[in-house]
Amino acid sequence: MTRRISKDTVLCMSLSGRPGNFGTRFQNHLYEALELDFIYKAFTTRDLPAAIGGVRALSIRGCAVSMPFKEACIPLLDGLAPSAEAIQSVNTVVNTDGVLIGHNTDYGAVRELLQRHGVSPDTPFAARGSGGMGKAVVSALRDAGFRDGIVVARNERTGRALAEVCGYRWQPELGEARPAMLVNITPVGMAGGREAEELAFPAEAIEASRVCFDVVALPVETPLIRAARAAGKTVITGGEVVVLQAVQQFILYTGVTPDAGRIAEAAAAALG
Amino acid sequence: MTRRISKDTVLCMSLSGRPGNFGTRFQNHLYEALELDFIYKAFTTRDLPAAIGGVRALSIRGCAVSMPFKEACIPLLDGLAPSAEAIQSVNTVVNTDGVLIGHNTDYGAVRELLQRHGVSPDTPFAARGSGGMGKAVVSALRDAGFRDGIVVARNERTGRALAEVCGYRWQPELGEARPAMLVNITPVGMAGGREAEELAFPAEAIEASRVCFDVVALPVETPLIRAARAAGKTVITGGEVVVLQAVQQFILYTGVTPDAGRIAEAAAAALG
Repeated sequence: MTRRISKDTVLCMSLSGRPGNFGTRFQNHLYEALELDFIYKAFTTRDLPAAIGGVRALSIRGCAVSMPFKEACIPLLDGLAPSAEAIQSVNTVVNTDGVLIGHNTDYGAVRELLQRHGVSPDTPFAARGSGGMGKAVVSALRDAGFRDGIVVARNERTGRALAEVCGYRWQPELGEARPAMLVNITPVGMAGGREAEELAFPAEAIEASRVCFDVVALPVETPLIRAARAAGKTVITGGEVVVLQAVQQFILYTGVTPDAGRIAEAAAAALG
Repeated sequence: MTRRISKDTVLCMSLSGRPGNFGTRFQNHLYEALELDFIYKAFTTRDLPAAIGGVRALSIRGCAVSMPFKEACIPLLDGLAPSAEAIQSVNTVVNTDGVLIGHNTDYGAVRELLQRHGVSPDTPFAARGSGGMGKAVVSALRDAGFRDGIVVARNERTGRALAEVCGYRWQPELGEARPAMLVNITPVGMAGGREAEELAFPAEAIEASRVCFDVVALPVETPLIRAARAAGKTVITGGEVVVLQAVQQFILYTGVTPDAGRIAEAAAAALG
């Protein structure tokens, strides 16, 4: 039987420059499985202030925020949760009676994944990228107690700023460094991009590492992840990040915590 | 199988002070029956400009507008179709690539129903009410060629203005008048209202009439309609108005004209 939308059905949504279907599929799958009277739909906009104004005026309960809106939305909100405040980057807006609070569930997802995969904070790492997602990941590493890190970024301004604020070194290239963990936070390896077939780190660096972590989720099996798996390394995939951050969004919006089986089903439906 | 919402699914909606479920049920029923990738949901708002701004910024295709927003929305739109221009009352906004045009499908629905029920424009009538819906109905009567009419309204300002602009007489009460058609455009007879059990016109006036037309749709069988049916009069119900105007909204939003069988099914699902 088809689920019925009524006047009381709660709408959640996303705003991004190039909407995908992951969030829409994942959240709707869980709403249906758990029989919650919610619906979710991805949107884009050319007028961010009016779109956020619409979220408030229409009592849209939650709004995921992706590139290029993660920083631009901040002045339009009523406040930031600690996860977003520290890094000044929002990927989730929660609307409670017209008060919009920005959160960053990428940050929490990264922290949880490092723990789940048993990566010790003693592990030296290199993280490549210094955009909005880079800030979430590198801040999560710092707050998890990782002390020995390199931020690798061609953009000296953003790369140096991120490294300094987190207490790491900045380098424009990895060079001869061979840290035990490699973290890719760039679009290298992303389907449809210019560098879809490229490795985010040199083969020798992958070989010398113990852990490879890629935030690219489309595809989940990026060249970096494939090479790391083949070499027997511990891998953390972008698929894990997007699912875990989406679960945190789901909990923020609905107040309901789905069990692992439901999450796995929703992830398979959304990523498949 | 459950219909899937994706990033490409088109959202239509409504804005009203007290949302009901008719539009949501009716439109979604037709979307599903005709396999259109649309969803529909009723909203309310305390910030009409931001809500309409959200319709534009989020590319929401259509927005039904009810009390108390039918006139207030006009300055927020980019233009009016003739149906709304003439009466300065909007019940439907169509968004085409960010350009918002206001329509009034109540007006067209009333004109079509007068024709369907074979009511000659020679029929003298009294129409009770002078609000937004009153303007749509009385203007439809005028444009259909009805010449001999009384606008009955306790509010002298709005009643006299509506009567004058349409070329009819204004009266605060029906009094001794016994016109052949009685039209109720007030909330008298509406479920939940103070006058839910009252007749919108005196029993003697109903007895003396040939046609009774009630725009109240909740319930469809108002005291006026029940009394008129019992007396063997021609009746035109608010259920017919809401269905017909909703069909016109559906066509404006989707470009698809549903057949009579589909409309009847959707009406039964939405009113039942």
